Amino acid sequence: MNILTKMLVGSAVLLAFSSGLHAQQTTEIKSEKATLQLDVVSEGLEHPWGLAFLADGKMLVTERAGRMRYVNADGSLSKPISGLPDITVAGQGGLLDIVLHPQFNQNNQIFFSYNEPGASGSSTAVARATLKDNALSNLQVIFSAQPKFESRHHFGGRLVFADNGDLFITLGDRGQRRDDAQTLDTHHGKVVRVTTDGSPADANPYLEQNNALADVWSYGHRNIQGAALHPQTKQLWTHEHGPQGGDEINIARADHNYGWPEITYGEEYGGGKIGKTKQDGMEQPLHYWVPSIAPSGMTFYTGELFKPWQQNLLVGSLKFGQLVRLELNGENVSHEERIMIGQRIRDVRQGPDGAVYLLTDRKDGQILRLTPKK
Amino acid sequence: MNILTKMLVGSAVLLAFSSGLHAQQTTEIKSEKATLQLDVVSEGLEHPWGLAFLADGKMLVTERAGRMRYVNADGSLSKPISGLPDITVAGQGGLLDIVLHPQFNQNNQIFFSYNEPGASGSSTAVARATLKDNALSNLQVIFSAQPKFESRHHFGGRLVFADNGDLFITLGDRGQRRDDAQTLDTHHGKVVRVTTDGSPADANPYLEQNNALADVWSYGHRNIQGAALHPQTKQLWTHEHGPQGGDEINIARADHNYGWPEITYGEEYGGGKIGKTKQDGMEQPLHYWVPSIAPSGMTFYTGELFKPWQQNLLVGSLKFGQLVRLELNGENVSHEERIMIGQRIRDVRQGPDGAVYLLTDRKDGQILRLTPKK
Repeated sequence: MNILTKMLVGSAVLLAFSSGLHAQQTTEIKSEKATLQLDVVSEGLEHPWGLAFLADGKMLVTERAGRMRYVNADGSLSKPISGLPDITVAGQGGLLDIVLHPQFNQNNQIFFSYNEPGASGSSTAVARATLKDNALSNLQVIFSAQPKFESRHHFGGRLVFADNGDLFITLGDRGQRRDDAQTLDTHHGKVVRVTTDGSPADANPYLEQNNALADVWSYGHRNIQGAALHPQTKQLWTHEHGPQGGDEINIARADHNYGWPEITYGEEYGGGKIGKTKQDGMEQPLHYWVPSIAPSGMTFYTGELFKPWQQNLLVGSLKFGQLVRLELNGENVSHEERIMIGQRIRDVRQGPDGAVYLLTDRKDGQILRLTPKK
Repeated sequence: MNILTKMLVGSAVLLAFSSGLHAQQTTEIKSEKATLQLDVVSEGLEHPWGLAFLADGKMLVTERAGRMRYVNADGSLSKPISGLPDITVAGQGGLLDIVLHPQFNQNNQIFFSYNEPGASGSSTAVARATLKDNALSNLQVIFSAQPKFESRHHFGGRLVFADNGDLFITLGDRGQRRDDAQTLDTHHGKVVRVTTDGSPADANPYLEQNNALADVWSYGHRNIQGAALHPQTKQLWTHEHGPQGGDEINIARADHNYGWPEITYGEEYGGGKIGKTKQDGMEQPLHYWVPSIAPSGMTFYTGELFKPWQQNLLVGSLKFGQLVRLELNGENVSHEERIMIGQRIRDVRQGPDGAVYLLTDRKDGQILRLTPKK
């Protein structure tokens, strides 16, 4: 492509975007199993964080800056949906993930996570609301992480429905409070499991335990920004950011301790050991990365468009701008491919069309769609 | 280092080598867990292939070109040891691996693999002999792969003693005969297990089966040039070259089919599918590489020098000139590090001193020693 063509394409994109249509940018990417086509679906989103697919070809997208919008089938964006609660937008916090109620088609309920303000700081909360046209109503905060705390870091925030309709919520250690990940009396560094009204789930391990929060499912996590239910086993797979190296993939099992900050394959920023790498009673990761990829977003691919990718785990990398494709042999990661996208990836989702949708973590963020090259 | 210093160092190396002393070349390598020091122990070996450690600080090394030598404690090399059998040196074939009898200190017996000539071509054979001073005696060929065949490719050739004193021999598919890897009536693409006199081992799965060779242990392999006994489970771990992509790590279990050429993650040279990637009754690899690293040599690290490497699997890469360090969680490869050595690696061994010894695959090949930087 020469300079003139580039300028013309640039102008075309600009015109398309400013007229509300989605940009027709297509990039070809070679990968191990297929030649891929990457298309820009939507642009102009401020740090998009979570994506959910509606039945009519539309999507819902969150912007960390505190907005939720419809994405129309042509990629154009609605005005912000009204009725969100107060959200503390600061650092890594803001409006985070979004999921539809499993019976959304009957009840129009959505769940979303966000950084909720309070007297002693803020914390990750989850609200349920009814979505009608461009407004939320019947808003209920079903979960607020305890304690509120002044920190702009490590909110976790992924939401995944369990097979029985319970909701998993992933929570970070809030940075300075990392030792809390090893105690059961705060939500820092935990996965919690609640019913859709926020009650502790019946399956939870600490329902009868003193000094433990009844909604805790697993602990010893650092900051989980990717989680997905395994399509066959229905177990919750998660990944989490390591400190500097040591990003992990785990299966979050009830009453299991994932070791942060006692054990990790990472090290302190600037160097220096944090702890050991192994300890009895603490889980080893299924897989980990050194150097860190800074993972965010995760899905098991089950669609028909990329048959060789079926049952693979797809993970976004903020740091390297890659889509990481992991082949699995049971709980063994047998192969890893890094597919260069070239932008920080915040979320990875499989659409109803079998395409893979990516959110890019930028002030002027995009929704990208990955399909096999036609 | 300026040009003059480089020239002086170069001269010093040349002088040291020509005087029979080992070269004092030291390279520093940064790696995840340690800063490493790489020293040249010996030079001037023609495609060194296998290495064994004697009790007195000496080593035995094979050269594919058909020579076996002592390596003295100072790195100097003996004259070739006399008494080797006829060896067909061509392509990938020649003198290959060497192991000491488990009671070598009592009986001075060694075992070595090589490309043995015959009327219809050549094949991988294993001989046993008594080593005394600079000569072999009492030579017995205990195994000859059937059939002999005109091919310069895929000899396998690694030798590993099982926990009970049986000998595992790894065998390649000989290139054009790859379909033989799926039948039990040839040795192509097999692991065999024999006693020290070459009889089929008692544990073998096809002792009573018609149309099957009684020494076969596992099948469906392509070309295994790395094998090691797991220090705890005592199972035989192997790796094998894929065709173009799809190098694999497996645990070679009795009566298990590793799928080549029916299933593979590689593809034909020049492109094109070979088969499927999965099939019932055929084993999936524990781990595989695309693109191929061209693995050769393998050891489980159990020494004290590199404590963070304990229980890690070390694999040589011919293609990328790397030492690949794999961390394991049971049978799961949880993490992979690539340590750049910069030369094709043919063999990887742990020495009695806990250092890691590497053979470089060149006409002017070296023995390298890896230790933590002092």
